Amino acid sequence: MTAEPTFSHLDATGTARMVDVADKAVTARQAVAQGRVVTTESVLAALRDNSLPKGDALATARLAGIMGAKRTPDLIPLCHPIALHKVAVDLVVSDDGVTITATTKTADRTGVEMEALTAVSVAGLTLIDMVKSADPAAELTDVRVLSKTGGKTGHWERS
Amino acid sequence: MTAEPTFSHLDATGTARMVDVADKAVTARQAVAQGRVVTTESVLAALRDNSLPKGDALATARLAGIMGAKRTPDLIPLCHPIALHKVAVDLVVSDDGVTITATTKTADRTGVEMEALTAVSVAGLTLIDMVKSADPAAELTDVRVLSKTGGKTGHWERS
Amino acid sequence: MTAEPTFSHLDATGTARMVDVADKAVTARQAVAQGRVVTTESVLAALRDNSLPKGDALATARLAGIMGAKRTPDLIPLCHPIALHKVAVDLVVSDDGVTITATTKTADRTGVEMEALTAVSVAGLTLIDMVKSADPAAELTDVRVLSKTGGKTGHWERS
Amino acid sequence: MTAEPTFSHLDATGTARMVDVADKAVTARQAVAQGRVVTTESVLAALRDNSLPKGDALATARLAGIMGAKRTPDLIPLCHPIALHKVAVDLVVSDDGVTITATTKTADRTGVEMEALTAVSVAGLTLIDMVKSADPAAELTDVRVLSKTGGKTGHWERS
Amino acid sequence: MTAEPTFSHLDATGTARMVDVADKAVTARQAVAQGRVVTTESVLAALRDNSLPKGDALATARLAGIMGAKRTPDLIPLCHPIALHKVAVDLVVSDDGVTITATTKTADRTGVEMEALTAVSVAGLTLIDMVKSADPAAELTDVRVLSKTGGKTGHWERS
Amino acid sequence: MTAEPTFSHLDATGTARMVDVADKAVTARQAVAQGRVVTTESVLAALRDNSLPKGDALATARLAGIMGAKRTPDLIPLCHPIALHKVAVDLVVSDDGVTITATTKTADRTGVEMEALTAVSVAGLTLIDMVKSADPAAELTDVRVLSKTGGKTGHWERS
Repeated sequence: MTAEPTFSHLDATGTARMVDVADKAVTARQAVAQGRVVTTESVLAALRDNSLPKGDALATARLAGIMGAKRTPDLIPLCHPIALHKVAVDLVVSDDGVTITATTKTADRTGVEMEALTAVSVAGLTLIDMVKSADPAAELTDVRVLSKTGGKTGHWERS
Repeated sequence: MTAEPTFSHLDATGTARMVDVADKAVTARQAVAQGRVVTTESVLAALRDNSLPKGDALATARLAGIMGAKRTPDLIPLCHPIALHKVAVDLVVSDDGVTITATTKTADRTGVEMEALTAVSVAGLTLIDMVKSADPAAELTDVRVLSKTGGKTGHWERS
Repeated sequence: MTAEPTFSHLDATGTARMVDVADKAVTARQAVAQGRVVTTESVLAALRDNSLPKGDALATARLAGIMGAKRTPDLIPLCHPIALHKVAVDLVVSDDGVTITATTKTADRTGVEMEALTAVSVAGLTLIDMVKSADPAAELTDVRVLSKTGGKTGHWERS
Repeated sequence: MTAEPTFSHLDATGTARMVDVADKAVTARQAVAQGRVVTTESVLAALRDNSLPKGDALATARLAGIMGAKRTPDLIPLCHPIALHKVAVDLVVSDDGVTITATTKTADRTGVEMEALTAVSVAGLTLIDMVKSADPAAELTDVRVLSKTGGKTGHWERS
Repeated sequence: MTAEPTFSHLDATGTARMVDVADKAVTARQAVAQGRVVTTESVLAALRDNSLPKGDALATARLAGIMGAKRTPDLIPLCHPIALHKVAVDLVVSDDGVTITATTKTADRTGVEMEALTAVSVAGLTLIDMVKSADPAAELTDVRVLSKTGGKTGHWERS
Repeated sequence: MTAEPTFSHLDATGTARMVDVADKAVTARQAVAQGRVVTTESVLAALRDNSLPKGDALATARLAGIMGAKRTPDLIPLCHPIALHKVAVDLVVSDDGVTITATTKTADRTGVEMEALTAVSVAGLTLIDMVKSADPAAELTDVRVLSKTGGKTGHWERS
């Protein structure tokens, strides 16, 4: 590990800027991100059941994640506003917690991994908000990109 | 684990609603939340150095976290819009990653832990956005409330 | 009907302004608004069933209405930004369509009927968005205040 | 009424998602939507006059409608963020109320009828906000798409 | 000029934070800000006339200013979200340009001068947007606080 | 000065609308805008030093400007929502004040000068917010377009 890492959002003097993507090609791009909400067994049991009277808990988190993806350029200072062609947020309740997976797609000059990460995070925070009266210690963890495709760097997959 | 957990954002039929806080007392409330961005040694070294040419990286994440706290009711569907009397976001670079701590304060009818968690998450996502050209595998982890004070439940601290 | 009606958002010269409410009392205020989405029998049957595979349709509209209420001062130019202490959105499917009822509460210097009307409208538009692939002619109708309480004018109820 | 209606925003399990439009063609699309604010004769007379001292009432509603169209993806959970190439909002005062017509255009992968409906609704709510001191019973009604063109389904017109 | 100036939004180490106002008193506060759009004589003549066919130009700027004031905490990173009890934006066309004056009021823990300055700026930018097809060189100048009252510092007036 | 100036955002009757750009060509467009914050010598000295303990002052303003550019269509009523391919905000402290220069780029149907002007204004307002505890008389002045390229009108440069 010899070379100094490059932070593309900073110019040579360390100044933040929104990177110029004008000359980048418009290509189909997709990203998948994942995270997990860790909470108590009894909360997981109530969520897994996903019936009334807990019906709206997962639906609320899923919608918040989808809407959160659209707010990405409002939240992340140097993100370009881009078209979003698809956002799907999937929540699976297991013994380990609630695993949240978000898939985002676009055809634009820049990738959609921040949109996928934001969808996961907002869905996770919303789930914490739903369960915090039962478990104030609930946490959001392991939020990360699983894979991305498209653009100059092509396909990347978490090893 | 006997009693069914109560999700205060759902009514008896499982329907989501913004809880009625009209009759709750206005009290001073504070929350502290924390999370961590895990990334490579070389990225951490560049950030720890916090000099040019990486000058704006941590400042950008900190500001994004502060602004993100203000967007909490826009992002989390059932959060009440509340006054925010203080938001501070602190980033510390160590060998384990970048630890992000957010402190929020209000005097209102409902707590500010979601604002603190949102500040941590948005700061963390922004940091990932800053370093992703150098480390596409960076992740945000262990986002959780450390403590909260005020309101009916009084002081709570993560054990 | 003799006297010229008074539009409180316009000054004596007809100029729009955000009314000065600094001297108005902070009182508990509540509003209830209602509207209806009119669509085809087959869409209503699918919604009434409210089971999979149409599970999220009503939940999506309800959440959109709650979140929409919080966006009222962003949408309605002369509305004051106010605290919202409760927002509930209720959707009932009948043979006439889907009746949407929103209840909003605050303790502030100005009423919450615009928040209730916005909640109903955004929930209704979202429902139209959900069903438009099946019924492009769906419409939102009869959006109006049912009652409001609090403030100088006290209780008002639609006759 | 034989076939079960299809709700394109729900997948086969009834889960809400933002539909994948990546493979849809970019075509010119236009939508026209309409709605009506019903209020008292004296309010209509004051608005029809459209002179000082009621000068800004209709202009305020028109602008709110145009700005509201731009907020559509923020308000309607499953709407794609799209480019908007034109938004026009027209208000006509008659004996029946104030008829609001919105026309929206884009060249994108998905239609603009939700933008037109949102423009009409926000203009209508704003007009209600302007006149509510004179008529607390004012209502917004008959909000619906009149026609849309472009995309796979081609031209559709309300019969 | 002896003492180092104090920047209240920075802590002792120069780190940005949202100042803690929890212990500040809630007092009535008002601010007046002003700015000016400089443009050509012919544009000023068309605006001064303020009749059709230029009817909506000043109304559009005025509304944008009022709505802009409400967006202040979204735009200015360290501004507290506060209640706004009044926003008025006044535009006067003279030979020198269009003078924009904004008055804002609140009863809160922090002042409203940023809201007044934002109202002036957004109104001015909107006016530039309206006239730029006729005068691409139009500029916004002399945006500043004229006076503020309330809070610990009491009355301040530009000398 | 013979011909009446044309305001492209108003139709023949003076009514505001979002101009139809559907038939305009997608071309690469760039704009540069500039403005200046005028403040006291001691504030300028503290900023010029740009070291701790004033470290975040300029970084905060720069980021606010970049984020502000993305909010342009939310703030300026008749601006089209457009893709932004680059936003850079540069702040230079001199004896005359802090000069703020913003450069914006897109490939779209309409220009980006409003985005550049908004970036300058929001950066300037944020700087005023940072220094107002030391200089309540700070002002933002000379906000204007320096040059723009692309589109039907081609290159324009302030003379």
